[in-house]
Amino acid sequence: MPQLYLIRHGIAADRSPQTYPDDSQRPLTDAGVKKTRKIAKRLAELNLQFDYLLTSPLVRAQQTAEILVNAKLSPKPEISAALAPAGELQDWLNWYNATPKTGKNGEVAIAVVGHQPDLGHWAEQLIWGESRGQLIVKKAGVIGVELPDDGDIIGQSQLFWLVPPRLLL
Amino acid sequence: MPQLYLIRHGIAADRSPQTYPDDSQRPLTDAGVKKTRKIAKRLAELNLQFDYLLTSPLVRAQQTAEILVNAKLSPKPEISAALAPAGELQDWLNWYNATPKTGKNGEVAIAVVGHQPDLGHWAEQLIWGESRGQLIVKKAGVIGVELPDDGDIIGQSQLFWLVPPRLLL
Repeated sequence: MPQLYLIRHGIAADRSPQTYPDDSQRPLTDAGVKKTRKIAKRLAELNLQFDYLLTSPLVRAQQTAEILVNAKLSPKPEISAALAPAGELQDWLNWYNATPKTGKNGEVAIAVVGHQPDLGHWAEQLIWGESRGQLIVKKAGVIGVELPDDGDIIGQSQLFWLVPPRLLL
Repeated sequence: MPQLYLIRHGIAADRSPQTYPDDSQRPLTDAGVKKTRKIAKRLAELNLQFDYLLTSPLVRAQQTAEILVNAKLSPKPEISAALAPAGELQDWLNWYNATPKTGKNGEVAIAVVGHQPDLGHWAEQLIWGESRGQLIVKKAGVIGVELPDDGDIIGQSQLFWLVPPRLLL
Protein backbone atom coordinates (compact mmCIF):
# COMPACT_ATOMS: atom_id res chain seq x y z
CA MET A 1 0.00 0.00 0.00
CA PRO A 2 1.20 3.56 -0.66
CA GLN A 3 3.12 5.07 2.22
CA LEU A 4 3.06 8.75 3.09
CA TYR A 5 5.67 10.29 5.37
CA LEU A 6 4.76 13.72 6.72
CA ILE A 7 7.93 15.39 7.96
CA ARG A 8 8.00 18.60 9.94
CA HIS A 9 10.83 21.02 9.11
CA GLY A 10 13.83 21.15 11.46
CA ILE A 11 14.54 23.70 14.17
CA ALA A 12 14.52 27.18 12.64
CA ALA A 13 15.58 30.65 13.76
CA ASP A 14 13.17 32.33 16.16
CA ARG A 15 10.40 34.46 14.73
CA SER A 16 11.62 38.05 14.55
CA PRO A 17 9.91 40.90 12.70
CA GLN A 18 13.28 42.71 12.77
CA THR A 19 15.57 39.99 11.38
CA TYR A 20 12.91 38.19 9.30
CA PRO A 21 10.19 40.65 8.35
CA ASP A 22 9.09 37.95 5.90
CA ASP A 23 8.57 34.88 8.08
CA SER A 24 8.82 32.57 5.06
CA GLN A 25 12.54 33.43 4.89
CA ARG A 26 13.40 32.11 8.36
CA PRO A 27 16.16 29.50 7.93
CA LEU A 28 17.09 26.44 9.96
CA THR A 29 19.58 27.18 12.72
CA ASP A 30 23.01 25.54 12.59
CA ALA A 31 21.90 23.13 15.30
CA GLY A 32 18.70 22.52 13.34
CA VAL A 33 20.69 21.64 10.22
CA LYS A 34 22.93 19.24 12.15
CA LYS A 35 20.06 17.50 13.88
CA THR A 36 18.03 17.23 10.69
CA ARG A 37 21.06 15.73 8.90
CA LYS A 38 21.40 13.07 11.61
CA ILE A 39 17.72 12.23 11.31
CA ALA A 40 17.96 11.99 7.52
CA LYS A 41 20.97 9.68 7.88
CA ARG A 42 19.02 7.45 10.24
CA LEU A 43 16.03 7.33 7.90
CA ALA A 44 18.36 6.30 5.08
CA GLU A 45 19.91 3.59 7.30
CA LEU A 46 16.38 2.29 7.87
CA ASN A 47 16.22 1.88 4.06
CA LEU A 48 13.56 4.48 3.55
CA GLN A 49 13.38 5.61 -0.06
CA PHE A 50 10.92 8.23 -1.21
CA ASP A 51 9.74 8.17 -4.82
CA TYR A 52 8.40 11.69 -4.49
CA LEU A 53 9.25 14.54 -2.19
CA LEU A 54 7.03 17.59 -1.92
CA THR A 55 7.96 20.57 0.17
CA SER A 56 6.40 23.73 1.46
CA PRO A 57 7.88 26.77 -0.31
CA LEU A 58 9.08 28.26 3.00
CA VAL A 59 12.86 28.40 3.39
CA ARG A 60 12.98 26.24 6.54
CA ALA A 61 10.99 23.51 4.80
CA GLN A 62 12.99 23.68 1.56
CA GLN A 63 16.22 23.40 3.56
CA THR A 64 14.83 20.34 5.34
CA ALA A 65 13.87 18.78 2.00
CA GLU A 66 17.36 19.46 0.64
CA ILE A 67 18.87 17.61 3.61
CA LEU A 68 16.67 14.60 2.81
CA VAL A 69 17.86 14.68 -0.80
CA ASN A 70 21.49 14.95 0.27
CA ALA A 71 21.01 11.83 2.42
CA LYS A 72 19.91 10.05 -0.78
CA LEU A 73 16.44 9.50 0.58
CA SER A 74 14.72 11.01 -2.40
CA PRO A 75 14.91 12.62 -5.82
CA LYS A 76 14.76 16.42 -5.99
CA PRO A 77 11.80 18.00 -4.24
CA GLU A 78 8.83 19.60 -5.91
CA ILE A 79 7.68 22.81 -4.25
CA SER A 80 3.99 22.65 -3.40
CA ALA A 81 1.88 25.58 -2.21
CA ALA A 82 -0.46 23.01 -0.57
CA LEU A 83 2.27 22.47 2.04
CA ALA A 84 2.65 26.13 3.01
CA PRO A 85 1.07 27.00 6.36
CA ALA A 86 -2.73 26.65 6.16
CA GLY A 87 -2.42 24.90 2.79
CA GLU A 88 -5.25 22.71 1.58
CA LEU A 89 -5.14 18.93 1.87
CA GLN A 90 -7.48 18.85 -1.16
CA ASP A 91 -4.75 20.41 -3.31
CA TRP A 92 -2.36 17.66 -2.25
CA LEU A 93 -5.06 15.05 -2.91
CA ASN A 94 -5.42 16.36 -6.45
CA TRP A 95 -1.68 15.89 -6.91
CA TYR A 96 -1.82 12.43 -5.31
CA ASN A 97 -4.70 11.26 -7.48
CA ALA A 98 -2.75 12.25 -10.59
CA THR A 99 0.43 10.48 -9.44
CA PRO A 100 1.42 6.91 -10.46
CA LYS A 101 1.14 4.51 -7.51
CA THR A 102 4.20 2.45 -8.34
CA GLY A 103 7.55 3.14 -6.77
CA LYS A 104 11.13 1.87 -6.77
CA ASN A 105 10.32 -0.70 -4.09
CA GLY A 106 6.96 -1.67 -5.58
CA GLU A 107 4.66 0.43 -3.41
CA VAL A 108 4.96 4.17 -3.88
CA ALA A 109 6.51 6.06 -0.97
CA ILE A 110 5.86 9.78 -0.76
CA ALA A 111 7.33 12.31 1.63
CA VAL A 112 6.03 15.80 2.27
CA VAL A 113 7.83 18.47 4.26
CA GLY A 114 5.72 21.08 5.94
CA HIS A 115 4.49 22.76 9.08
CA GLN A 116 2.45 22.25 12.22
CA PRO A 117 -0.40 22.15 12.96
CA ASP A 118 -1.15 21.34 9.31
CA LEU A 119 0.76 18.06 9.03
CA GLY A 120 -0.95 16.64 12.11
CA HIS A 121 -4.32 17.82 10.79
CA TRP A 122 -3.70 16.23 7.40
CA ALA A 123 -2.73 12.95 9.02
CA GLU A 124 -5.85 13.01 11.22
CA GLN A 125 -8.04 13.63 8.17
CA LEU A 126 -6.45 10.70 6.38
CA ILE A 127 -6.77 8.40 9.39
CA TRP A 128 -10.03 9.46 11.03
CA GLY A 129 -11.73 11.71 8.52
CA GLU A 130 -11.44 14.92 10.54
CA SER A 131 -8.83 17.08 12.30
CA ARG A 132 -8.86 17.65 16.03
CA GLY A 133 -5.24 18.52 16.78
CA GLN A 134 -4.59 15.33 18.78
CA LEU A 135 -1.18 14.50 17.30
CA ILE A 136 1.96 15.95 18.88
CA VAL A 137 4.54 16.48 16.13
CA LYS A 138 7.90 17.97 17.07
CA LYS A 139 10.23 19.76 14.68
CA ALA A 140 11.89 17.17 12.40
CA GLY A 141 9.37 14.63 13.68
CA VAL A 142 7.85 12.15 11.25
CA ILE A 143 4.30 10.84 10.81
CA GLY A 144 3.88 7.68 8.72
CA VAL A 145 0.51 6.92 7.15
CA GLU A 146 -0.39 3.89 5.06
CA LEU A 147 -2.91 4.77 2.36
CA PRO A 148 -5.41 2.25 1.00
CA ASP A 149 -4.74 0.91 -2.48
CA ASP A 150 -8.21 1.73 -3.72
CA GLY A 151 -11.02 4.10 -2.99
CA ASP A 152 -11.16 7.22 -0.89
CA ILE A 153 -8.12 7.69 1.33
CA ILE A 154 -9.76 10.21 3.71
CA GLY A 155 -10.66 8.44 6.94
CA GLN A 156 -9.47 5.13 5.46
CA SER A 157 -5.71 5.33 6.07
CA GLN A 158 -3.76 3.86 8.97
CA LEU A 159 -1.12 5.40 11.17
CA PHE A 160 2.08 3.35 11.45
CA TRP A 161 4.57 5.97 12.74
CA LEU A 162 4.46 8.97 15.00
CA VAL A 163 8.11 9.44 15.71
CA PRO A 164 9.74 12.30 17.58
CA PRO A 165 13.25 13.36 16.53
CA ARG A 166 14.87 11.97 19.69
CA LEU A 167 14.09 8.44 18.52
CA LEU A 168 15.86 9.08 15.23
CA LEU A 169 19.09 10.50 16.61
CA MET B 1 0.70 15.88 32.13
CA PRO B 2 0.37 12.15 32.86
CA GLN B 3 1.99 9.96 30.24
CA LEU B 4 0.69 6.55 29.28
CA TYR B 5 2.83 4.07 27.35
CA LEU B 6 0.91 1.18 25.79
CA ILE B 7 3.39 -1.57 24.99
CA ARG B 8 2.54 -4.64 22.95
CA HIS B 9 4.11 -7.92 24.10
CA GLY B 10 7.15 -9.20 22.18
CA ILE B 11 7.26 -11.92 19.55
CA ALA B 12 5.71 -15.10 20.97
CA ALA B 13 5.56 -18.75 19.92
CA ASP B 14 3.05 -19.48 17.17
CA ARG B 15 -0.48 -20.39 18.15
CA SER B 16 -0.70 -24.17 18.41
CA PRO B 17 -3.60 -26.14 19.93
CA GLN B 18 -1.17 -29.05 20.31
CA THR B 19 1.74 -27.34 22.06
CA TYR B 20 -0.31 -24.61 23.80
CA PRO B 21 -3.85 -25.86 24.27
CA ASP B 22 -4.22 -22.88 26.60
CA ASP B 23 -3.25 -19.88 24.43
CA SER B 24 -2.59 -17.76 27.53
CA GLN B 25 0.48 -19.94 28.20
CA ARG B 26 2.26 -19.14 24.91
CA PRO B 27 5.68 -17.72 25.82
CA LEU B 28 7.98 -15.28 24.02
CA THR B 29 10.38 -16.97 21.63
CA ASP B 30 14.12 -16.71 22.29
CA ALA B 31 14.37 -14.15 19.51
CA GLY B 32 11.38 -12.34 20.99
CA VAL B 33 13.09 -12.18 24.40
CA LYS B 34 16.32 -10.83 22.86
CA LYS B 35 14.57 -8.19 20.78
CA THR B 36 12.36 -7.10 23.67
CA ARG B 37 15.44 -6.78 25.91
CA LYS B 38 17.11 -4.52 23.35
CA ILE B 39 14.01 -2.37 23.14
CA ALA B 40 13.79 -2.13 26.94
CA LYS B 41 17.45 -1.11 27.07
CA ARG B 42 16.83 1.61 24.50
CA LEU B 43 13.80 2.91 26.40
CA ALA B 44 15.93 3.08 29.55
CA GLU B 45 18.66 4.95 27.63
CA LEU B 46 15.98 7.44 26.61
CA ASN B 47 15.45 7.99 30.37
CA LEU B 48 11.97 6.60 30.43
CA GLN B 49 10.87 5.71 33.93
CA PHE B 50 7.49 4.23 34.67
CA ASP B 51 5.92 4.84 38.06
CA TYR B 52 3.42 2.05 37.47
CA LEU B 53 3.47 -0.98 35.23
CA LEU B 54 0.34 -2.99 34.57
CA THR B 55 0.38 -6.15 32.55
CA SER B 56 -2.05 -8.55 30.97
CA PRO B 57 -2.06 -11.88 32.85
CA LEU B 58 -1.03 -13.80 29.71
CA VAL B 59 2.43 -15.35 29.86
CA ARG B 60 3.78 -13.49 26.81
CA ALA B 61 2.73 -10.16 28.34
CA GLN B 62 4.04 -10.97 31.81
CA GLN B 63 7.39 -11.96 30.31
CA THR B 64 7.49 -8.66 28.44
CA ALA B 65 6.71 -6.76 31.64
CA GLU B 66 9.48 -8.64 33.46
CA ILE B 67 11.97 -7.57 30.79
CA LEU B 68 10.95 -3.94 31.35
CA VAL B 69 11.51 -4.35 35.09
CA ASN B 70 14.90 -5.97 34.54
CA ALA B 71 15.92 -2.97 32.41
CA LYS B 72 15.12 -0.81 35.47
CA LEU B 73 12.33 0.95 33.65
CA SER B 74 9.78 0.28 36.31
CA PRO B 75 8.86 -1.20 39.70
CA LYS B 76 7.29 -4.67 39.72
CA PRO B 77 4.22 -5.07 37.54
CA GLU B 78 0.66 -5.42 38.72
CA ILE B 79 -1.33 -8.01 36.84
CA SER B 80 -4.54 -6.52 35.47
CA ALA B 81 -7.40 -8.48 33.91
CA ALA B 82 -8.36 -5.29 32.03
CA LEU B 83 -5.29 -5.87 29.85
CA ALA B 84 -6.16 -9.43 28.85
CA PRO B 85 -7.45 -9.75 25.28
CA ALA B 86 -10.81 -8.01 24.94
CA GLY B 87 -10.37 -6.41 28.37
CA GLU B 88 -12.32 -3.28 29.21
CA LEU B 89 -10.80 0.18 29.04
CA GLN B 90 -13.33 1.21 31.71
CA ASP B 91 -11.71 -1.19 34.18
CA TRP B 92 -8.35 0.43 33.54
CA LEU B 93 -9.97 3.88 33.90
CA ASN B 94 -11.28 2.90 37.31
CA TRP B 95 -7.73 1.96 38.31
CA TYR B 96 -6.36 5.17 36.80
CA ASN B 97 -8.87 7.40 38.56
CA ALA B 98 -7.88 5.85 41.90
CA THR B 99 -4.14 6.28 41.25
CA PRO B 100 -2.06 9.26 42.47
CA LYS B 101 -1.00 11.49 39.59
CA THR B 102 2.46 12.29 40.89
CA GLY B 103 5.51 10.37 39.79
CA LYS B 104 9.26 10.21 40.32
CA ASN B 105 9.84 12.82 37.62
CA GLY B 106 6.91 15.02 38.65
CA GLU B 107 4.34 13.85 36.12
CA VAL B 108 3.16 10.30 36.57
CA ALA B 109 4.29 7.87 33.85
CA ILE B 110 2.33 4.67 33.45
CA ALA B 111 3.08 1.69 31.23
CA VAL B 112 0.68 -1.08 30.33
CA VAL B 113 1.63 -4.29 28.54
CA GLY B 114 -1.05 -5.97 26.50
CA HIS B 115 -2.35 -7.16 23.17
CA GLN B 116 -3.59 -6.02 19.80
CA PRO B 117 -6.06 -4.89 18.66
CA ASP B 118 -6.97 -3.76 22.19
CA LEU B 119 -4.03 -1.43 22.81
CA GLY B 120 -4.65 0.43 19.56
CA HIS B 121 -8.35 0.65 20.36
CA TRP B 122 -7.67 1.99 23.85
CA ALA B 123 -5.31 4.63 22.44
CA GLU B 124 -7.90 5.65 19.86
CA GLN B 125 -10.58 5.97 22.53
CA LEU B 126 -8.27 8.15 24.61
CA ILE B 127 -7.22 10.42 21.75
CA TRP B 128 -10.25 10.25 19.56
CA GLY B 129 -13.20 9.11 21.67
CA GLU B 130 -13.85 5.99 19.63
CA SER B 131 -11.98 2.99 18.22
CA ARG B 132 -11.69 2.43 14.52
CA GLY B 133 -8.63 0.18 14.30
CA GLN B 134 -6.54 2.78 12.46
CA LEU B 135 -3.30 2.34 14.45
CA ILE B 136 -0.74 -0.21 13.30
CA VAL B 137 1.04 -1.57 16.38
CA LYS B 138 3.72 -4.24 15.88
CA LYS B 139 4.85 -6.68 18.54
CA ALA B 140 6.99 -4.82 21.10
CA GLY B 141 5.81 -1.57 19.54
CA VAL B 142 4.98 1.38 21.79
CA ILE B 143 2.15 3.90 21.75
CA GLY B 144 2.63 7.06 23.83
CA VAL B 145 -0.40 9.08 24.94
CA GLU B 146 -0.39 12.28 26.97
CA LEU B 147 -3.41 12.47 29.25
CA PRO B 148 -4.97 15.78 30.31
CA ASP B 149 -4.35 16.88 33.90
CA ASP B 150 -8.02 17.45 34.61
CA GLY B 151 -11.37 16.25 33.43
CA ASP B 152 -12.36 13.35 31.23
CA ILE B 153 -9.43 11.72 29.44
CA ILE B 154 -11.53 9.91 26.81
CA GLY B 155 -11.22 11.78 23.52
CA GLN B 156 -9.14 14.47 25.25
CA SER B 157 -5.67 12.88 25.19
CA GLN B 158 -2.93 13.43 22.64
CA LEU B 159 -0.78 10.95 20.80
CA PHE B 160 2.95 11.65 21.00
CA TRP B 161 4.45 8.27 20.02
CA LEU B 162 3.58 5.45 17.70
CA VAL B 163 6.87 3.65 17.48
CA PRO B 164 7.57 0.35 15.80
CA PRO B 165 10.25 -1.91 17.30
CA ARG B 166 12.69 -1.30 14.44
CA LEU B 167 13.11 2.29 15.59
CA LEU B 168 14.04 1.13 19.08
CA LEU B 169 16.70 -1.43 18.11
